[in-house]
Amino acid sequence: MRNKFFLIATIILCSSGMANGRQNDSLVIKRLSDEIMSNSTAYENLRYLCKKIGPRLSGSANAQLAIDATAKMLRQAGADTVYLQPCMVTHWERGAKETGFIQLANGTKYPLRLTALGNSVGTGKNGVKASIIEVRSMEELQALGEKVIKGNIVFFNIAMNPTYVRTFVAYGTNGGGRRSGPAQAAKYGAIGVMVRSLASNIDDHPHTGATQYNDSFPKIPAVAISTQDAEWLSSQLKRKMQLTGYFKTNCTMFPDVPSFNVIGEIRGSEFPQEILSVGGHLDSWDLAEGAQDDGAGCMQSIEIIRAYKALGLRPKRTVRAVLFMNEENGGGGGAAYLRMAKEKNEQHIFALESDGGGYTPRGFNLDMSEGRRNKVKQWAPLFYDYGVYDFAGKGSGSDIAPLKNIGTALAGLSPDSQRYFDLHHAETDVFEAVSKRELDLGAVNMAALMWLVSEYGL
Amino acid sequence: MRNKFFLIATIILCSSGMANGRQNDSLVIKRLSDEIMSNSTAYENLRYLCKKIGPRLSGSANAQLAIDATAKMLRQAGADTVYLQPCMVTHWERGAKETGFIQLANGTKYPLRLTALGNSVGTGKNGVKASIIEVRSMEELQALGEKVIKGNIVFFNIAMNPTYVRTFVAYGTNGGGRRSGPAQAAKYGAIGVMVRSLASNIDDHPHTGATQYNDSFPKIPAVAISTQDAEWLSSQLKRKMQLTGYFKTNCTMFPDVPSFNVIGEIRGSEFPQEILSVGGHLDSWDLAEGAQDDGAGCMQSIEIIRAYKALGLRPKRTVRAVLFMNEENGGGGGAAYLRMAKEKNEQHIFALESDGGGYTPRGFNLDMSEGRRNKVKQWAPLFYDYGVYDFAGKGSGSDIAPLKNIGTALAGLSPDSQRYFDLHHAETDVFEAVSKRELDLGAVNMAALMWLVSEYGL
Repeated sequence: MRNKFFLIATIILCSSGMANGRQNDSLVIKRLSDEIMSNSTAYENLRYLCKKIGPRLSGSANAQLAIDATAKMLRQAGADTVYLQPCMVTHWERGAKETGFIQLANGTKYPLRLTALGNSVGTGKNGVKASIIEVRSMEELQALGEKVIKGNIVFFNIAMNPTYVRTFVAYGTNGGGRRSGPAQAAKYGAIGVMVRSLASNIDDHPHTGATQYNDSFPKIPAVAISTQDAEWLSSQLKRKMQLTGYFKTNCTMFPDVPSFNVIGEIRGSEFPQEILSVGGHLDSWDLAEGAQDDGAGCMQSIEIIRAYKALGLRPKRTVRAVLFMNEENGGGGGAAYLRMAKEKNEQHIFALESDGGGYTPRGFNLDMSEGRRNKVKQWAPLFYDYGVYDFAGKGSGSDIAPLKNIGTALAGLSPDSQRYFDLHHAETDVFEAVSKRELDLGAVNMAALMWLVSEYGL
Repeated sequence: MRNKFFLIATIILCSSGMANGRQNDSLVIKRLSDEIMSNSTAYENLRYLCKKIGPRLSGSANAQLAIDATAKMLRQAGADTVYLQPCMVTHWERGAKETGFIQLANGTKYPLRLTALGNSVGTGKNGVKASIIEVRSMEELQALGEKVIKGNIVFFNIAMNPTYVRTFVAYGTNGGGRRSGPAQAAKYGAIGVMVRSLASNIDDHPHTGATQYNDSFPKIPAVAISTQDAEWLSSQLKRKMQLTGYFKTNCTMFPDVPSFNVIGEIRGSEFPQEILSVGGHLDSWDLAEGAQDDGAGCMQSIEIIRAYKALGLRPKRTVRAVLFMNEENGGGGGAAYLRMAKEKNEQHIFALESDGGGYTPRGFNLDMSEGRRNKVKQWAPLFYDYGVYDFAGKGSGSDIAPLKNIGTALAGLSPDSQRYFDLHHAETDVFEAVSKRELDLGAVNMAALMWLVSEYGL
């Protein structure tokens, strides 16, 4: 009887302790939200990054300007330590603007809105000119084979499927043309590739993005054309028009060059050796200001440091904001981060990346063991007031993914994805496309999750 | 024993029946989603409404053009019946563009970006000129009283509180200056009112909106100034600057005029006498294209009719798309809708309004009895795949609110609200501010909810 009473008393006390803890967490998160929604500097920092610096492809002069500027932002945010972590990065240059057209049998030329795919080879000064073969899948390419493909330009007309409510699913499912189309087409003797831009909407802006060659086959030049042009081109081909395509790209792949990840941290008060990273990537495609992709994630990460400092919140574990270099076309920054972690034998408990745009946050994707996942899910109710409710997604972010190698629990902010592929990797990814409140609300939820992990570990 | 077995068997059969029903509902909703996300005409219809017609304040020639155009859209969508429902609407005209400035003691004049509040009286040809008294609340106005206020211009500098994650809460809480400020200031002898625009962001666009006079006090002219100007003006006043304000408005309130609600319906197959309404409001402020407010809600409502027809889905109950006139500055359309419902003794089971913008949907606000609310909430899991999870909100929409009078269960689409008050009632509420996918996803969820109510009643 006495034991039973003791047991019940213990349960009550524990529950009450948990409830108090929960209540206290809730208050801290409310303070973080109020601070960030009222005084965030993320939006003005993003304005600077986009408007004063602009595009910042790895290895470019602008990338170095962005490194210097964000290191300064991290110092202004109040980070205990700010430093640059060396890494080697891809150095690809677009060169002069690309040109291209479709020529009808009667000689009429229709100019195309196009852009070279990232990391692709240039055409040389004469460009490539050949008949256009449209395919809608890798299977169709394979079925046509060398007999049809050889000596021609393959047009991968694979639209993003609009019925996927989560647009990243369409990006993954329908992105093969850009990612491996040139390598696959080369296998069958194609001399060039045009891909339909990976975009949700029908418009005039070509969307670039990295393609990956296969060393067993020739590297052939490749461009993305606007979805509008893709629709038009396909309609022409349907009418059995005999079409010749031409394009000229002027890009060059150079040897890797040294660059940096930018890091700012607050040292943990109790377990400083346990490191929690939060970041985005600092490099962007050369076409755009890289506002949503991924200036937003970088500025949110800096904002977390600023908000903790402004509120005098000292995390128990070390919280590190990491602005990774070279996510777009090489992954040099993420690789270096893992390498240094191993060399220094650092304990990386948790890493969070924001690389889905600074849109209204809706959840966190979790890439971790079931036990850790359940621990995070227990915190879910703390996020409801801030619009985050979905913890079912998998995955994290490509810069932090290498940390899986050392057992780090990973997560990715999952913002609303409806508008992302309207502007992704296109010239429309500019500061004006970012909403201040949406950006800040992402930072609020990220700050909350980082705080909970810093308090309780995983 | 036999009875117990029977009971269990019944429970199993019922559960299984429910599971089958649920599964079937899930399939219908998936079909609706695929149809709308692939073939919706809402976005192109909205383009027409915004770009070919544009602003459409009640009583204007454009409002009539919008009536004709949307009736045509409803016919094209395949509605069984399309008709215009007469209503009387407010007829207020802005007249020539407003002007105004702040004059410093040294005579320097700073022009203000301002707009007359909806339904406000004009200043007359001389405008109003007086000292500026800043207040931050109704309590402050009251405390200053007639002694300070009389003969002056009151400046209601009440910012939308950025810490409310749901921006509609700030709009409600901080909107008194616009809604009743002129009436309150007149009580203490003010000769004019300037209100800080009800906007989430700091920018240069004044936001209009209706104000309501109190017949016991004089009707004094009133303008909204941009948030940027409000910040500047307040900073000048803090420096104890002696400031004179001037503004001239040219607006006139005319007697009410006849207009119409636009209605298109699909007759129910089993219970045609039970009416389910879904709508938005067709009128918009004269400054803007009224894209998010509320062209979006109208086009979504038409899209529901189109999608049902395209899929051959015949609802059991009558589904009626209603485009209400005069929501912005009088409510004549909503009042007429109720009056006609009463006159015809119609059974209005349910009404849904979309008037929070065509942003990504996150939930439905419910204004109905607890029993009905619980019934709707049971359907919640059917919406998760389409981004809707929040059924906790209260309220519905101002056009359908009168139906409460006859016991109708009401609901409102609750879209993401972060960007709404950047453009609400300002010249920035244009077609380009709408995302096709966000707009369509709202229609998907509305179509799903209307379908469930048409199948099961409430």
